[in-house]
Amino acid sequence: MTDAASAAPRRRARGGGGAARRAERTGVKIETAKYIERNIPNFEVLSEEALQVIETNADIILEEVGVNFVDNPAALERWRAAGATVEGERVRIPRGLARELCKTAPSEFTQHARNPEKSVVVGGKNMVLAPVYGPPFVRDAKGGRRYATLDDFQKFVKLGYMSKWLHHSGGTVCEPTDVPVNKRHLDMLMAHMTLSDKPFMGSVTDPSRAKDSVEMCEILFGKEFVRDNTVMTSLININSPMTFDDVMMGALEVYAEHNQACIISPFIVGGAMAPVSIAGTLTQVLAEVLAGVAYSQLVRPGAPVIFGAMVTSIDMNSGAPTFGTPETSHITYGAGQLARRMNLPYRSAGSFCGSKLPDAQAAYETANSLNMGLLSGVNFQLHSCGWLEGGLVADFEKFVMDADQLGVLHGLAKGVEIDENAQAMDAIREVGPGGHYLGCAHTQANFKDAFWKTELLDYKPFETWEEEGARDTIALASNRVETLLNAYQAPAIDPEILAKLEAYVAEKKASMPDAFI
Amino acid sequence: MTDAASAAPRRRARGGGGAARRAERTGVKIETAKYIERNIPNFEVLSEEALQVIETNADIILEEVGVNFVDNPAALERWRAAGATVEGERVRIPRGLARELCKTAPSEFTQHARNPEKSVVVGGKNMVLAPVYGPPFVRDAKGGRRYATLDDFQKFVKLGYMSKWLHHSGGTVCEPTDVPVNKRHLDMLMAHMTLSDKPFMGSVTDPSRAKDSVEMCEILFGKEFVRDNTVMTSLININSPMTFDDVMMGALEVYAEHNQACIISPFIVGGAMAPVSIAGTLTQVLAEVLAGVAYSQLVRPGAPVIFGAMVTSIDMNSGAPTFGTPETSHITYGAGQLARRMNLPYRSAGSFCGSKLPDAQAAYETANSLNMGLLSGVNFQLHSCGWLEGGLVADFEKFVMDADQLGVLHGLAKGVEIDENAQAMDAIREVGPGGHYLGCAHTQANFKDAFWKTELLDYKPFETWEEEGARDTIALASNRVETLLNAYQAPAIDPEILAKLEAYVAEKKASMPDAFI
Repeated sequence: MTDAASAAPRRRARGGGGAARRAERTGVKIETAKYIERNIPNFEVLSEEALQVIETNADIILEEVGVNFVDNPAALERWRAAGATVEGERVRIPRGLARELCKTAPSEFTQHARNPEKSVVVGGKNMVLAPVYGPPFVRDAKGGRRYATLDDFQKFVKLGYMSKWLHHSGGTVCEPTDVPVNKRHLDMLMAHMTLSDKPFMGSVTDPSRAKDSVEMCEILFGKEFVRDNTVMTSLININSPMTFDDVMMGALEVYAEHNQACIISPFIVGGAMAPVSIAGTLTQVLAEVLAGVAYSQLVRPGAPVIFGAMVTSIDMNSGAPTFGTPETSHITYGAGQLARRMNLPYRSAGSFCGSKLPDAQAAYETANSLNMGLLSGVNFQLHSCGWLEGGLVADFEKFVMDADQLGVLHGLAKGVEIDENAQAMDAIREVGPGGHYLGCAHTQANFKDAFWKTELLDYKPFETWEEEGARDTIALASNRVETLLNAYQAPAIDPEILAKLEAYVAEKKASMPDAFI
Repeated sequence: MTDAASAAPRRRARGGGGAARRAERTGVKIETAKYIERNIPNFEVLSEEALQVIETNADIILEEVGVNFVDNPAALERWRAAGATVEGERVRIPRGLARELCKTAPSEFTQHARNPEKSVVVGGKNMVLAPVYGPPFVRDAKGGRRYATLDDFQKFVKLGYMSKWLHHSGGTVCEPTDVPVNKRHLDMLMAHMTLSDKPFMGSVTDPSRAKDSVEMCEILFGKEFVRDNTVMTSLININSPMTFDDVMMGALEVYAEHNQACIISPFIVGGAMAPVSIAGTLTQVLAEVLAGVAYSQLVRPGAPVIFGAMVTSIDMNSGAPTFGTPETSHITYGAGQLARRMNLPYRSAGSFCGSKLPDAQAAYETANSLNMGLLSGVNFQLHSCGWLEGGLVADFEKFVMDADQLGVLHGLAKGVEIDENAQAMDAIREVGPGGHYLGCAHTQANFKDAFWKTELLDYKPFETWEEEGARDTIALASNRVETLLNAYQAPAIDPEILAKLEAYVAEKKASMPDAFI
């Protein structure tokens, strides 16, 4: 834990302890791994020359073509004052200006959790894993595909809380469509704040909801703490190509003014919202992020931001987005290089797939995406588990399946030890040709932590597996979802704070009529 | 195609053309991609210091502990003559000697196919993909899990022939258990030679069967051609730890004497057959490969060989091998580095999984393994498709599922283009903020080749997919297996050669009684 992270208020340290003890009695361990600190290199596909070409081209695009800031006179005024050329909603940014403005953004920041043991440091060699974000539908094996409800949302937050390899509770894990659209954010924030003690995201669907998010955090963390610390990381999508709408920018403005973190992220289906080539897409991604991050720094120099790149390829026959493809990987590796050259934390990748079921297609696509996420140097990985059907569906079984695979990323990131114990020369001498290592002293001393362990997958002999019902991964996962939800216990929370949060939500809800669009 | 590859006899060039034309009429394209030529870096996890420690330790092990050559007086004599210390079956190799002997092995070699367009160059930045090897069982959705037969074997060879991303027909794609054990190799070779025109592997289960393999190749390719060229790559497993048995070494001797290629490969379940640590396992792998490759060069200096590493991790609770784990990846990345420092082609990775079904578990594990195979610099990837249940089962559906994913590897290996067309500046200028790229000139000119295309996976909208029967990946793959086998047409072969091969097999079979163990 860094100094910054451990500076969070002590009174919250007890959160989770009681629940962990209770769950342990039921046989389900509640543990949260520390965010990943990579001890392996990043995988890089762009040469120095290619990087310079893309950077130069992005600057040319910002100067010659520019970006649109829609319905946002204050933003246009900020840009004009900073030296950009503004015509209508079009902002043309002289070469070098955007990059210069981005320099005040921090290269890493701590996002505090109410349980300070679960605060995360975003940036550097670190990788923070958060669950799926945004699906209007949920699916599970029993109930099939259906509109998501608040009950589903709360279940996902509980599963996230109980997932060892998930460091972050996320944001809109699914859309609680049974709650009015203008009140959902209150229930979602309540769930993250009370059902989990991991860090979370704020609302971005309206600037007023971003304000509500800040105010609820002021209740949870204390007003002074929120003033001085980052307690939310929220997702600001750019309308690619090169359009910044007033809703997203309004939310960004609220968060930046309050020193809360934002992911500034092009959302691109390649070939539709960006050129059909990798270099062209990277140029546009960079131009958009440069403009977006620069704008955040115009609002408040030093506001924490993340270089986002949510890019998929496209099936040119149907227009459907495609996942786990080589082109997506190239873009993700390349965007990581561009982000590091800007000294910004990087967000990309996730449990992406196009499949309608958590089947082999989903798993191939997801594993390709998760591997590329780790190796591309992603610092904040949204959508790390539970994503299905191009992001339309949050899937319960896939949530725990993916969450289990996140352990593989933790293991990979550890790199290779080379100390005397790891060299194992005594073991090789002891066993010798034709022997076996199962009983030798070195194995006995090291086997417990030597290998990553699944909590889900099946390695049993065929006959045993068949006797137990020949279950596929979906069946194993259904069982795990049920087990986890049955064992769930909420982390402790100060009853006074809880009461204040409840009062805040009740008052807010009472203050406006329901809206459903 | 390199000069070496194109030097194969011209008369075989017509193989496959007729079948391809026929299959095209049935709507199934028969294409074979060129072996992968990487335009991306390798991923490396070991520092220079770690590499030196492992290399030094391997040398110490060879000198102090040594290796066993079992029931093989001629091998012991060769080692003694080369300067090793021999006591009983134990061969202790003075430091530096094994590495010195390995220097005569070529850094790359061409394995010729009877269709010279399908010859492969093994080594350098290349990656050659071959199917699963060795399972006694097969599985498909309709028939379930059962002992493999020659009919199954032939079907897999046909599927391999029709798989675009598979460069190699492999060897024991499954064990034809309905054929006597001493005659199987004849039928397997016949299948590879006549049902496909891709390169293939020879028999290693007895030195006499290796000789039969060479003789059949002399019929297929011509005696002089086989004398001067490599036409088989065969799999020589080391009995880890550090034991070289007479059967495998006998086969190696036959192939090396005939200048035919061998993969010399430790087969290790980590924690059982090697130390439970990554550095310790790599030390043992390197010691074993050094001894095996050195021995091949004692048999015939310059004989083509491949540095093999078939290493899995273990589930310490059950003792079952585990796949797609971070520890396997570290070992595979590290062994690639060690192989490159010896200037040897490298064999590792594959469609590894422990699952009993081609479900999500299988696909996660496989995708992890395939990604690590590409990025670790593997030059020859056995088991690239069809592996199930820890290698006990060759699965028909998984064969075509994995074979489709091999296209992803081809796409990744291409790297990123940065020429003017790829930069797409005109497209970005043309479309501008808020537009879309689907109709623009750059997209129209480039979309056909821009993205990897699956032949299997489903990207349809939910409603269409549901109307079509809500098929999972297994159902889609069953359908593809059937389509491919229905469209299959054997590549043309010189009837005289075919008759000679048939006569050879008949004579051999008649010359010995059936053996079933």
